Amino acid sequence: MQFKILKKDGFARTALLETKRGVIHTPAFMPVGTNGTVKAMTPEEVRDIGYEIILSNTYHLYLRPGHETIKEIGGIHRFINWQGPILTDSGGFQIYSLASLRKITSEGVEFRSHIDGSLHFISPERAIEIQIALGSDIMMVFDECVPYPAEKQYVEKSIKLTKDWAERCKNYFEKQRTNQSLFGIIQGGVYDDLREKSLEEIVKIGFDGYAIGGLSVGEPKEDMYRVVKNVTPLMPEDKPRYLMGVGDLIDVLHAVEHGIDMFDCVMPTRNARNGTLFTSRGRISIKRSEFKDDSTALDPECDCYTCRNYTKAFLRHLYMCREILSMRLNTIHNLYFYCKFFEKMRTAIAEGRFQDFKKEWLPVLEKNFSSEPDDFHHS
Amino acid sequence: MQFKILKKDGFARTALLETKRGVIHTPAFMPVGTNGTVKAMTPEEVRDIGYEIILSNTYHLYLRPGHETIKEIGGIHRFINWQGPILTDSGGFQIYSLASLRKITSEGVEFRSHIDGSLHFISPERAIEIQIALGSDIMMVFDECVPYPAEKQYVEKSIKLTKDWAERCKNYFEKQRTNQSLFGIIQGGVYDDLREKSLEEIVKIGFDGYAIGGLSVGEPKEDMYRVVKNVTPLMPEDKPRYLMGVGDLIDVLHAVEHGIDMFDCVMPTRNARNGTLFTSRGRISIKRSEFKDDSTALDPECDCYTCRNYTKAFLRHLYMCREILSMRLNTIHNLYFYCKFFEKMRTAIAEGRFQDFKKEWLPVLEKNFSSEPDDFHHS
Repeated sequence: MQFKILKKDGFARTALLETKRGVIHTPAFMPVGTNGTVKAMTPEEVRDIGYEIILSNTYHLYLRPGHETIKEIGGIHRFINWQGPILTDSGGFQIYSLASLRKITSEGVEFRSHIDGSLHFISPERAIEIQIALGSDIMMVFDECVPYPAEKQYVEKSIKLTKDWAERCKNYFEKQRTNQSLFGIIQGGVYDDLREKSLEEIVKIGFDGYAIGGLSVGEPKEDMYRVVKNVTPLMPEDKPRYLMGVGDLIDVLHAVEHGIDMFDCVMPTRNARNGTLFTSRGRISIKRSEFKDDSTALDPECDCYTCRNYTKAFLRHLYMCREILSMRLNTIHNLYFYCKFFEKMRTAIAEGRFQDFKKEWLPVLEKNFSSEPDDFHHS
Repeated sequence: MQFKILKKDGFARTALLETKRGVIHTPAFMPVGTNGTVKAMTPEEVRDIGYEIILSNTYHLYLRPGHETIKEIGGIHRFINWQGPILTDSGGFQIYSLASLRKITSEGVEFRSHIDGSLHFISPERAIEIQIALGSDIMMVFDECVPYPAEKQYVEKSIKLTKDWAERCKNYFEKQRTNQSLFGIIQGGVYDDLREKSLEEIVKIGFDGYAIGGLSVGEPKEDMYRVVKNVTPLMPEDKPRYLMGVGDLIDVLHAVEHGIDMFDCVMPTRNARNGTLFTSRGRISIKRSEFKDDSTALDPECDCYTCRNYTKAFLRHLYMCREILSMRLNTIHNLYFYCKFFEKMRTAIAEGRFQDFKKEWLPVLEKNFSSEPDDFHHS
């Protein structure tokens, strides 16, 4: 895997991450395909919108259908019919946030499946073994994702565990004949000194890229922004930097400003299914009765399939009827909006006008759209 | 609207139904788009599979979003983004089967919405007015769909009502400046003499096509087949014949054999969402554990998007996860299977070998597929 920085604009940077399955232009957004499918989309639709990489969840695929099944079918790319790069998380985050029963020891984590209550044990080695079976392009180390709030003492012990596990992941990984890449994860909660310590330890082990984990777990935005601002300058310049689980575009703007390259989040897809749509005039809740007879496109400045072919009235109708096509058309639009946002952001960095881009977009991203003219003046 | 018979093979016939929005090759299957969307599909997908006409439900569109809204947006074709012909039912069937509270008088039907309980009244004139507002290509008269079982005395009164309403629909229709077509509906339950009487009365009024209604409502198959067999020879030869709500392909074979030209049914789409898939080797329930590691296509003889790109293992996985893509891929396959079945059936009729076609397909349609080899020998 090669990481080539094309242009820097302040700390913001645009680069090429070259993998054997294709190039990823960064800053990049990775749509989330929890069960091996970006919800409501075919792989071709995701690709045609312009995405170069998707994320899938090791925890979910391990439980269902099982990594051995996917390996037998020929790996995750063949299984899900996506030929581009795939990043898999390590399962750590889901185990901490979803699993009903879990016991963390230095050896690993014992937990019960959220599907059938069956008992499982995942060690750092096992997490890599599973991801190798899946055959993803970028694997993540097994870490402990600390919840918010957490006592400093707990977080201090936790980053030690995360370091030990990262070492074990790296050691196990190096013994395998695989041409996959492995990213390390920096933890440390909202404590700047612990973040710095975790960073040093993880970088010392050495990985193909580095992620900031354990943010967007309920902490105040100021904490998230401060951690990103403090950690990024200490991260290796020549490796991709990935801010895990963050995808609010306002947060993205702040993170890119400080040199983050990769993002993933369910926000565009989940919001779409719930009828919340991003537009060049602000967020729209499509169920609002004001759209009942609205014969205009969702976003007149958008060229997506949804905006080219349907009215707000029809989108509202589909949403009210809970039709599957509602989730499809909304997801197409939100993914398109995100994709174009990232494209324009990369261009802005390349042209040295990232700050203008940020100033232009912040008010749009903060606004709720309404057809009532008043709404444009106070929000 | 022009109806041109190309070839007859026994009573079976293949024809062209020419509308101002395109030609329909018959025998034709019409996918059902209850709320203006064939569930889980975009209009382009339905068209690209090969469908030339879809059906939509007046009752549902009248209640939500309302025919006035659709008219304001520019009619149903623009609203739902389907440029081909659309047939709308009259709402009669849904009012009888869905509405919680209904009162039938000679004037029309008073009923409560299944959505919000609001009170509505639909007369024959109103049913046509709504369909004219929608702008469908083929409208259906407002009829009484008699449940099964029903006393002969009740059915006798009912066909009188259906005749009166058909006359009122025709009269109202003739006063409007519309280039839509209007089909009459024959009722009469499972009583041969009443069917014959209803047929004579409806044909006497004169319509652009004739439908057999009130079948597939719970009556034994023998009754359905007998009614179709007895009624069809008395239906005008030079007008399209439509068997409403029937779409089991075994029933279709029997009906086409007796000269039926058009069908609609939720079966391929609803079964798809429930994981029941039609294949050249019989019906498959995709959730069966035997498919967990099955790396072969759903139907090796099928060229649909689903069969070209995905394994049974993946389709089972998506189904078990209740993913939206499961419903999409399954619906694409079932609609494709139906479309190809009708195409092959038309060719068989054109080539004078409909009986061979029927003999070849009946055992396939009756079979449940299993990967267990034994299943091929006894079923």
